[in-house]
Amino acid sequence: MRVRNKPWAEPLIAAHPEVISTNPIEFKGNWQARFKKPQPIRIEIGMGKGHFIVEMALKYPEINFIGIEIQRSVAAIALKKALANGLPNLQLVLADGADLNEYFEDGEIDRIYLNFSDPWPKTRHEKRRLTYKTFLQVYRTILVEHGAIELKTDNQGLFEYSLLSMNNFGLVFDGVYLDLHHSDEALENVETEYEHKFSEKGQRIYKLKSHF
Amino acid sequence: MRVRNKPWAEPLIAAHPEVISTNPIEFKGNWQARFKKPQPIRIEIGMGKGHFIVEMALKYPEINFIGIEIQRSVAAIALKKALANGLPNLQLVLADGADLNEYFEDGEIDRIYLNFSDPWPKTRHEKRRLTYKTFLQVYRTILVEHGAIELKTDNQGLFEYSLLSMNNFGLVFDGVYLDLHHSDEALENVETEYEHKFSEKGQRIYKLKSHF
Repeated sequence: MRVRNKPWAEPLIAAHPEVISTNPIEFKGNWQARFKKPQPIRIEIGMGKGHFIVEMALKYPEINFIGIEIQRSVAAIALKKALANGLPNLQLVLADGADLNEYFEDGEIDRIYLNFSDPWPKTRHEKRRLTYKTFLQVYRTILVEHGAIELKTDNQGLFEYSLLSMNNFGLVFDGVYLDLHHSDEALENVETEYEHKFSEKGQRIYKLKSHF
Repeated sequence: MRVRNKPWAEPLIAAHPEVISTNPIEFKGNWQARFKKPQPIRIEIGMGKGHFIVEMALKYPEINFIGIEIQRSVAAIALKKALANGLPNLQLVLADGADLNEYFEDGEIDRIYLNFSDPWPKTRHEKRRLTYKTFLQVYRTILVEHGAIELKTDNQGLFEYSLLSMNNFGLVFDGVYLDLHHSDEALENVETEYEHKFSEKGQRIYKLKSHF
């Protein structure tokens, strides 16, 4: 997701180190201390403007959430939402989601959300897709035993690829939804900004629930 | 697939025991003897009117094919097509596809095609779906080591279910196509009668390639 550069982003982020980390390496193995109470931790890689992770934190107070985003101006919009809701179970991270095992200790995370990741459609860019095997290896390391991965996308090619890659990696599927918004799973679905825009246009949303 | 009863079906089938078997148990472990030469055997469960299996036998002379169909009048239409093409690498079976391990020896089959099987959409009929675990167990038995299963359907629910069930059973996915007729895989696709009718109406066709 690209947005125009926001001059207010940097000062806002600098003013709220209690909510957003720009150097997450320093909290490796100690994330629970950043929350009001220790609870299972779920992370979203590429939270964008944060609608999903903020809604999830509101809906599930018994879970701790961490939203990760690499783009400063986008993360700052998410930070505004987080601050407006004053959530004791939500932390944000401004950093590259590719370096997860530098930020999290083995088994520190309970569940990973991959929402509308960049599909990288060209075959030569396969290694950049967030469901490529090298990423899955990192996810397995930071997740608890039998930890879960939930994927949503509107991109048919990325979904086909992820079904293959995640099956080949040995992940156990718990739910496959080829038209999420017209399924039973829609009832408890929390949308991202992107998802809301595209599903309103009649675009199919795909979802995969899986665990190691 | 239901068709009107055809009075000519029974005599035609009775007249061609060299092509169509009505008591496949007697050939268990000896199917290669029914073909001109021993070659890997692939079977289609529910061949319907036989368009797919006849086209496959024409396209791949280096493979032996067996089409299985439970309905006499439907199987008789397939038999007509088979006879018209005089194929040394095609055998037909008029019998229930649920009893495969009575017809085939362990490891006798190289690949199984499941084309447009009955979706049995009600949860209480799950056990009747041809990708339910008890069927997968039978397929594993009659297939060679690392034998393949290829599934095509236009039914979203059956495809979602099969992705789950086959993943959970430990099958390795080799290809997932969420819109077969608009994919690279379309180039070598051989259609069934049903598929031709429904894809012409713009219905998506799903395909899964997998192996044990």
